[in-house]
Amino acid sequence: MTLKIGIAGATGYGGIELLRLLGNHPEATVVLAGTESYVGQELAAVYPHLAGRVTLAGREATAEALAAECDVVFTALPHGVPMKLAPAVLAAGGKFIDLGADFRLRDTSAFESWYKHKHEAPALMAEAVYGLPELYREQIQGARLVGNPGCYPTSCALAAAPLLTAGLVETRGIVFDSKSGVSGAGRGVNLGVHYSEVNENFKAYNIAGGHRHTPEIEQTLTDLNGGTAVVVTFTPHLVPMTRGILTTAYFQLKQDHQTSELLELFRSFYAGKPFVRVRPAGDLPQTKQVWGSNYCDIGLQVDRRTGRVLVVAVIDNLVKGAAGQAIQNMNLMCGLPETTGLLAAAPVYP
Amino acid sequence: MTLKIGIAGATGYGGIELLRLLGNHPEATVVLAGTESYVGQELAAVYPHLAGRVTLAGREATAEALAAECDVVFTALPHGVPMKLAPAVLAAGGKFIDLGADFRLRDTSAFESWYKHKHEAPALMAEAVYGLPELYREQIQGARLVGNPGCYPTSCALAAAPLLTAGLVETRGIVFDSKSGVSGAGRGVNLGVHYSEVNENFKAYNIAGGHRHTPEIEQTLTDLNGGTAVVVTFTPHLVPMTRGILTTAYFQLKQDHQTSELLELFRSFYAGKPFVRVRPAGDLPQTKQVWGSNYCDIGLQVDRRTGRVLVVAVIDNLVKGAAGQAIQNMNLMCGLPETTGLLAAAPVYP
Amino acid sequence: MTLKIGIAGATGYGGIELLRLLGNHPEATVVLAGTESYVGQELAAVYPHLAGRVTLAGREATAEALAAECDVVFTALPHGVPMKLAPAVLAAGGKFIDLGADFRLRDTSAFESWYKHKHEAPALMAEAVYGLPELYREQIQGARLVGNPGCYPTSCALAAAPLLTAGLVETRGIVFDSKSGVSGAGRGVNLGVHYSEVNENFKAYNIAGGHRHTPEIEQTLTDLNGGTAVVVTFTPHLVPMTRGILTTAYFQLKQDHQTSELLELFRSFYAGKPFVRVRPAGDLPQTKQVWGSNYCDIGLQVDRRTGRVLVVAVIDNLVKGAAGQAIQNMNLMCGLPETTGLLAAAPVYP
Amino acid sequence: MTLKIGIAGATGYGGIELLRLLGNHPEATVVLAGTESYVGQELAAVYPHLAGRVTLAGREATAEALAAECDVVFTALPHGVPMKLAPAVLAAGGKFIDLGADFRLRDTSAFESWYKHKHEAPALMAEAVYGLPELYREQIQGARLVGNPGCYPTSCALAAAPLLTAGLVETRGIVFDSKSGVSGAGRGVNLGVHYSEVNENFKAYNIAGGHRHTPEIEQTLTDLNGGTAVVVTFTPHLVPMTRGILTTAYFQLKQDHQTSELLELFRSFYAGKPFVRVRPAGDLPQTKQVWGSNYCDIGLQVDRRTGRVLVVAVIDNLVKGAAGQAIQNMNLMCGLPETTGLLAAAPVYP
Repeated sequence: MTLKIGIAGATGYGGIELLRLLGNHPEATVVLAGTESYVGQELAAVYPHLAGRVTLAGREATAEALAAECDVVFTALPHGVPMKLAPAVLAAGGKFIDLGADFRLRDTSAFESWYKHKHEAPALMAEAVYGLPELYREQIQGARLVGNPGCYPTSCALAAAPLLTAGLVETRGIVFDSKSGVSGAGRGVNLGVHYSEVNENFKAYNIAGGHRHTPEIEQTLTDLNGGTAVVVTFTPHLVPMTRGILTTAYFQLKQDHQTSELLELFRSFYAGKPFVRVRPAGDLPQTKQVWGSNYCDIGLQVDRRTGRVLVVAVIDNLVKGAAGQAIQNMNLMCGLPETTGLLAAAPVYP
Repeated sequence: MTLKIGIAGATGYGGIELLRLLGNHPEATVVLAGTESYVGQELAAVYPHLAGRVTLAGREATAEALAAECDVVFTALPHGVPMKLAPAVLAAGGKFIDLGADFRLRDTSAFESWYKHKHEAPALMAEAVYGLPELYREQIQGARLVGNPGCYPTSCALAAAPLLTAGLVETRGIVFDSKSGVSGAGRGVNLGVHYSEVNENFKAYNIAGGHRHTPEIEQTLTDLNGGTAVVVTFTPHLVPMTRGILTTAYFQLKQDHQTSELLELFRSFYAGKPFVRVRPAGDLPQTKQVWGSNYCDIGLQVDRRTGRVLVVAVIDNLVKGAAGQAIQNMNLMCGLPETTGLLAAAPVYP
Repeated sequence: MTLKIGIAGATGYGGIELLRLLGNHPEATVVLAGTESYVGQELAAVYPHLAGRVTLAGREATAEALAAECDVVFTALPHGVPMKLAPAVLAAGGKFIDLGADFRLRDTSAFESWYKHKHEAPALMAEAVYGLPELYREQIQGARLVGNPGCYPTSCALAAAPLLTAGLVETRGIVFDSKSGVSGAGRGVNLGVHYSEVNENFKAYNIAGGHRHTPEIEQTLTDLNGGTAVVVTFTPHLVPMTRGILTTAYFQLKQDHQTSELLELFRSFYAGKPFVRVRPAGDLPQTKQVWGSNYCDIGLQVDRRTGRVLVVAVIDNLVKGAAGQAIQNMNLMCGLPETTGLLAAAPVYP
Repeated sequence: MTLKIGIAGATGYGGIELLRLLGNHPEATVVLAGTESYVGQELAAVYPHLAGRVTLAGREATAEALAAECDVVFTALPHGVPMKLAPAVLAAGGKFIDLGADFRLRDTSAFESWYKHKHEAPALMAEAVYGLPELYREQIQGARLVGNPGCYPTSCALAAAPLLTAGLVETRGIVFDSKSGVSGAGRGVNLGVHYSEVNENFKAYNIAGGHRHTPEIEQTLTDLNGGTAVVVTFTPHLVPMTRGILTTAYFQLKQDHQTSELLELFRSFYAGKPFVRVRPAGDLPQTKQVWGSNYCDIGLQVDRRTGRVLVVAVIDNLVKGAAGQAIQNMNLMCGLPETTGLLAAAPVYP
């Protein structure tokens, strides 16, 4: 049985990454590549790297077509659009995975406040499962609608989960200082992604609670904290590179712990989770070490002088932070082994 | 049947790229990872991106061990070393593919003059096949010893082959103006690869006949020219990027031709050669469009004002310019389909 | 006496580079910073790097204002606009230096054919002097209207001038293979300057006679050739860096020459020209070595095997290729020492 | 009166940056360029960007020569060496500014513990003034021996000073999350600065109290805290760029404050300090905006949700973080206006 896949938003960076990864998936074939800008054009003409590999032409991704033709639909679109497409697909028995923000938050008012957009499918929002497999695997396995996590929140949640679950750290005062490559901003053009403005430059942006990924991070940490609200400081930065996120997370330990002890906690927490790799003591992950792959690599170190533990987590923002994780979710939703089709995308080094 | 693979020089950039690509090869398994610097260490400790994927430890790659344990041996070593390893491996019935310079040239004196090194296995040099599958496929299929082409020469030869074979261009005055990413220089450290010296910088080097790839390019072009010697101008440059080679090749047409006509010639020449993709008129390849893959993409355009045709060819220097092509050769030498294990390495874009 | 300077197009990359360089000029002060997008805004608010250094607000750069308030006007604007501003400024006794294409070519029909734009001031086009001081110093000294050379043509002309002037090379078959950083494309946003498309990528574009700098290069080489037309092959490429142009120029020698002999020719030709530095034998210039400065560095080497001489010339495209050269022209036009205000901009290395 | 300058370590990145900046200094001339690797060679041959600008040859920088020939000596050398040179220079009446670590810390045992090196001039260590002019101007004016601050500590101290001086923030729990370009590591070659390892990569290193700049940061913050010890979390990261440091500093406010109120505090604190530029509300500094210059730009924002203020400070690590600040110190020590020779180095943008 081969899954028939539709991608709405196939010609953005998230979309073409889905095409790259699904090209190695033995149980899936893309049948509908939705696009606004390139309807009727061969994808391989728009993106010559696809030549000889993808023979689809771009189409308008209407709810009707997606519902009629696809077993699984991925949406990589601006917020507000997927909520219009999901009902028809689900009604037709399809599965729906949104790489955007429409189904990540459970709280409708939080969505509307952060995104300045009325949610048109609040019931689906309630039904949707947050697609971070390392934390919500069972719910994902039973889901027909998944909100795929944001890139930054994936790195933050995986850095925090073992510590909060074990109750070892203060839930006040947590800092996520995150650094991202430029591709996370998508393929749209504006001065902020102009090469001459980004190259040989480094900046912070949307600091002090200004970034939309903040409520998503807090939702997950609140879950990990047994439902008691967690408020965090999340600071995104832009690195002059194309792919990769590194999050440096700062936690205050409730009591003294050895680095080795906490590493053992992390290894135990992520045992059986094939895409999280915990580093040995003294070794910190670098973004290039997961480049092009679905891994999240994590290292940590205790600072005895300040009573803190620092956790460093890295992902490729387009894979574990977007398309790869979406396929991981699809695998779980469809009863396939979690890694199906994803291990072929080895980290490319250097 | 699974081929047992040995890699001598597994911890250089060519070596770890072989490990990445062979990880997706269904008929091959690496059994011996040779290294000088990391004997006894887990490769995944040296290169954390391999964690969870490669469980080998580095070993000394002696001729005896390679001969005894391996069906196919790849060498990614300084010139002079592979020629010491090849005899034993071949004597034991193994196949031998050198990613370096020991077996590329047929002319022993040319080797010795360019590399300032006495060749210790001149008979093997004579037997060795030049491993550019698009031009020497049949010889490779019957070979037990292959000299894998240099990165620059791969791009130059593939840019030139249809034109010289068809006899459409002057064989005097050919210019290959080539630009390479830094990884082609390997993992060794020196001021020339220091980030602060390379970043935001562009330079030419070894110009005017000074680069060792010159005789290799000329050997192939002379073959294409029916054995009559071709002398070329080859100019290498260093681009501030990690991977990729782009060669701009200049040929004087003997008589007037349309761009479309020459494109048709190229398409016809490369028909059935799965790793060469010829671009449509008006479209020129960029290095990123083959990044991480074994493709060579080619575009061209006639300049009516000067009677020239310009051909632009791009490869990933570590794949089609090294490890990928070596595996392509292995496939041919071992009777496997040429693309086995190589198509999973899709170009990674962006 | 301080020159009152107007800049039309002050908020593009050429404009802010003029502001940077003029900030060190002892005889000039910018009184009018023209802009379309930022009228009424402090330049230091648009460009925070100017904070504390530039206190101008952007204004509309009308012909009237420029004519009334400025001794010297620089235009860094799309072609077609400067030709509308020049008449009034000149009529008021001002000097006019266009960093764009309106006054570079002498042949009106060539301008109109390459730029698809009717020239509205053909008499001024005839009067204008091509502002390459190393070749046209005397004409510039007497000029009130200068067409400042393009970035690529500056590097090509300076690489060629000694050889053509001395008549040592064939004027057929010359190749300029040029490589430029991204800032040459200006601050406008489009997919071609998107960081994720440019970074870790290299490409050729507008090859085979397709680039508008071709007729400009040929005009200068024809001058150097005593008026007999020279047709060249000019191939531009895009390098993943912000600043810098390197041109590799290929010339066929009429007869054999030593590298040292030709270097002596270059040194002699450029004696007394303070912004051209000729390298010693065996040393080739790199773009970073002139980064941020008004120098053009040149190296060369004879290839005895092919009878060619290869010349490598580097500039900073925003300085010697634009703003710096424009100030050099201003100095000459206003009777100031050629280097006034320009030497403070030392190359920044690394 | 022109100051005769000696530079010991003139051919490292700090040294050549001193040469660049001093080239614009009207009251100083470099008379002795000390080097270990290039004795007897023209500096312009080692660094071609200096051609036509610097005519010195490298010399051995002995204590005797420095003492005899120089009014001011800058040392840009490994720790342990400057302490051997300082006594003779000071004895001869010269001024001594060390860009390294020998004279930054006041606590000899802290130096010896962090640097694993016995200090040979503890009395001079006690005499030396910490050369951060914005905080220690008066002491610097009277000093003959200055320890020039580290690059990271400069950014951290300037981000913190107004807040700690005003007593508005908790002195426990301060975090400095710093990101640096590669040139801070100097010109020495090792795998950590290999282009292929750094490009398209981001990493943390020496975290959790492991970096030698930690005690230097804490010494200054303790001063600002009236002598009561401050312990901080300092986390350095490596950015794929050549120049620039951005520090994101996290402070817990003792009570609620508006962003505008704290910005006013910063503006007031830095009034009359020409190299610190405080950004308006809503504007955060980027490293490129100070590139090549001696500025430190600072922005901040209060996070009401967490009661924190985030301060972002940027410098060019080779200028305000090294050579520029050293010249600023020289100016103060020699009774010159603080900005002498430094404003010509405008930020280069883009």
